[in-house]
Amino acid sequence: MVQTGNHQRVKAMNRWAVVSVLADRTPCSRGEIAALTGLSPTTVVAATEALLAEDLIRATGFGQSRGGRRPLLFELNPHGRYVIAADLGGTKLVTAVVGLDGRIFHSERFPVDASGAEPVLNGLLSGLEQAWEWVADPDRVMGIGIATPGLIAHDRGEVLFASNLRWKNVKLRELVSARFAVPVYVENDTNAAALGELARGVGTSFRTLVYVAVGTGIGSGIVLDGQLFRGSWGVAGEMGHITVDPDGPLCSCGNRGCLEAIASGPAIVRMAQAISGSDGGEGRSTGGELAELAHHGDPAAREAFRHAGAALGTVLGGVVNLLSPEAIIIGGGVAQAGEVFLEPLRQEVARRSLLIPGRKVQVLPSRLGTAAGLIGLWTLAFQAKFSD
Amino acid sequence: MVQTGNHQRVKAMNRWAVVSVLADRTPCSRGEIAALTGLSPTTVVAATEALLAEDLIRATGFGQSRGGRRPLLFELNPHGRYVIAADLGGTKLVTAVVGLDGRIFHSERFPVDASGAEPVLNGLLSGLEQAWEWVADPDRVMGIGIATPGLIAHDRGEVLFASNLRWKNVKLRELVSARFAVPVYVENDTNAAALGELARGVGTSFRTLVYVAVGTGIGSGIVLDGQLFRGSWGVAGEMGHITVDPDGPLCSCGNRGCLEAIASGPAIVRMAQAISGSDGGEGRSTGGELAELAHHGDPAAREAFRHAGAALGTVLGGVVNLLSPEAIIIGGGVAQAGEVFLEPLRQEVARRSLLIPGRKVQVLPSRLGTAAGLIGLWTLAFQAKFSD
Repeated sequence: MVQTGNHQRVKAMNRWAVVSVLADRTPCSRGEIAALTGLSPTTVVAATEALLAEDLIRATGFGQSRGGRRPLLFELNPHGRYVIAADLGGTKLVTAVVGLDGRIFHSERFPVDASGAEPVLNGLLSGLEQAWEWVADPDRVMGIGIATPGLIAHDRGEVLFASNLRWKNVKLRELVSARFAVPVYVENDTNAAALGELARGVGTSFRTLVYVAVGTGIGSGIVLDGQLFRGSWGVAGEMGHITVDPDGPLCSCGNRGCLEAIASGPAIVRMAQAISGSDGGEGRSTGGELAELAHHGDPAAREAFRHAGAALGTVLGGVVNLLSPEAIIIGGGVAQAGEVFLEPLRQEVARRSLLIPGRKVQVLPSRLGTAAGLIGLWTLAFQAKFSD
Repeated sequence: MVQTGNHQRVKAMNRWAVVSVLADRTPCSRGEIAALTGLSPTTVVAATEALLAEDLIRATGFGQSRGGRRPLLFELNPHGRYVIAADLGGTKLVTAVVGLDGRIFHSERFPVDASGAEPVLNGLLSGLEQAWEWVADPDRVMGIGIATPGLIAHDRGEVLFASNLRWKNVKLRELVSARFAVPVYVENDTNAAALGELARGVGTSFRTLVYVAVGTGIGSGIVLDGQLFRGSWGVAGEMGHITVDPDGPLCSCGNRGCLEAIASGPAIVRMAQAISGSDGGEGRSTGGELAELAHHGDPAAREAFRHAGAALGTVLGGVVNLLSPEAIIIGGGVAQAGEVFLEPLRQEVARRSLLIPGRKVQVLPSRLGTAAGLIGLWTLAFQAKFSD
């Protein structure tokens, strides 16, 4: 605790205090920054001068006078630094250039050739390359964030296992760092989306939340007291493989009755077909088509979404009893079906959880959609650059 | 961040660093304390002198020489301060006087008159009174910790709801503080037991663990990164009311198929009777008797424990997927049945959890038994006195 370099450390802490205030509430006068951080006016002046000199913040006009001169207002300089973010899935890759304030300036979408581990990696690198070229001044790139499905060792930036990318023990940070000389962050896609919703989505007023993505698979990201909870081995949040029905349908993981085998997009499509007696041949619908059918009153589609929503609600009722979060945020393609899915989900959460945590938790649809992960990667890069 | 009183704060932090090292590794020389805390030798001398003056630590002999003089060894002074701990249940109250080092010096057990809220409270107060009298010098009592079942608002020391104590919104801290002029800590009994196992039981080498008590009911305490996780409303860990079988037996909470309705002591007894065809009349066994029967090979008893162990294992498999803890600790009366219960539990955890978290988690029986909660209350009082 007795440290040399203490002065540097205090300066870094003050800097973090100022930029994190500006990331959440913008624009701010120096007086407001002092009030919100507890720093002295002198310290705030020094910190803002340093941040201005580095192009990290900028003045954006004048605030209301409180008797004297009108105060200068500051905000993060959106073009002061960029984070290049890539959300990589089994079928598509979305890249983005995110400004220092978390705004997405440029985004592109590419198909993914998942025929093998190599083509997936090459596609990612070429997508990153194009985003990198979009940024006129590469010195302004403060980091690259990559979100992928699967099990990830976040601390060493390694993808341990991601079946739909055909990746096993891919040292992604090393591989990407070899091409681009900036810090690289690798995160599970659902974890990244949870951080995005917390920072800029429907989760901004909560400190403890569970984000669930329901799509081809089902995963979750857990935020406890404002921080991502990754579990002891970095693999927390694998909600899709929680057993709902011990004797239920076989899951891709080898168990029976996993949530994913009952409430994922493909499982809902299967169920709707089973109910309507369709053989799943040429009339096979996608999840999106099924949602449209449900909106227009198709009984089989409605029943399939209801059944899936109730199954997810049962699991989430348990999660509420276990973790008592303030909010549960439902994202992913299936969530776009709306109330036909969310209503039975909410009912089952209420029914399957105890009175106090069940009454207090809010179940909300995602606000950011597919941008959640990209913004979550910005959060990671932003925190890594300025905090600690 | 620019604070007056910084000097006081640094002194308090150094003091916390020293006592927490001595709480975990004892005895220690000043040199070892310096190495383990990162404090300078001068700071360690000042801190140990202050702690000696307050009777909080004591010298306990000399260590090995490393060339020069043999170093003095220090330990927490077990009689320097006491915590009075009370573990209150629906049928019995256990009180203890716990030394500053977490050792139990004196413990008493009382029956609880649960005919109403008042008799329960009076019984608790009289038990605390007797423990208080056992301590010769009341100035040495640094706090009172009380563990109760039910939902607790830890921050204000209020028992919101505890059905078997017939308590609702009982402002326990206020009531106890009115009698005893020391800090009072109120904690959920399973949370307290989780802390106890972490501090002195089977959990000392872990940072993230889930403690499950299986008895008349089923509850859990969650420790994440060395800290108790209470959830947003202080009511996390209600594992007993996680749904195992959506259409299963009715639970006392009003839902169907809760874990508690399938794997608690009474549920196991019911199941054994159903299997053996006994009518539950005069031959009705207790959980303890049933465990004895199972040990001697009784098929109905064995099958009932196996079924309950598997049900708990299914839920814990989901908890492993969600939180990826390093360890799961099984306590409570039912755990005393041993392998007939734990073996199917472990199997189901392995089967119902994903490969990485499932392979890494250890499922262990509690080491401290009924003392876990008392020691956990010591942890709370110790942390409150010295940290922060």
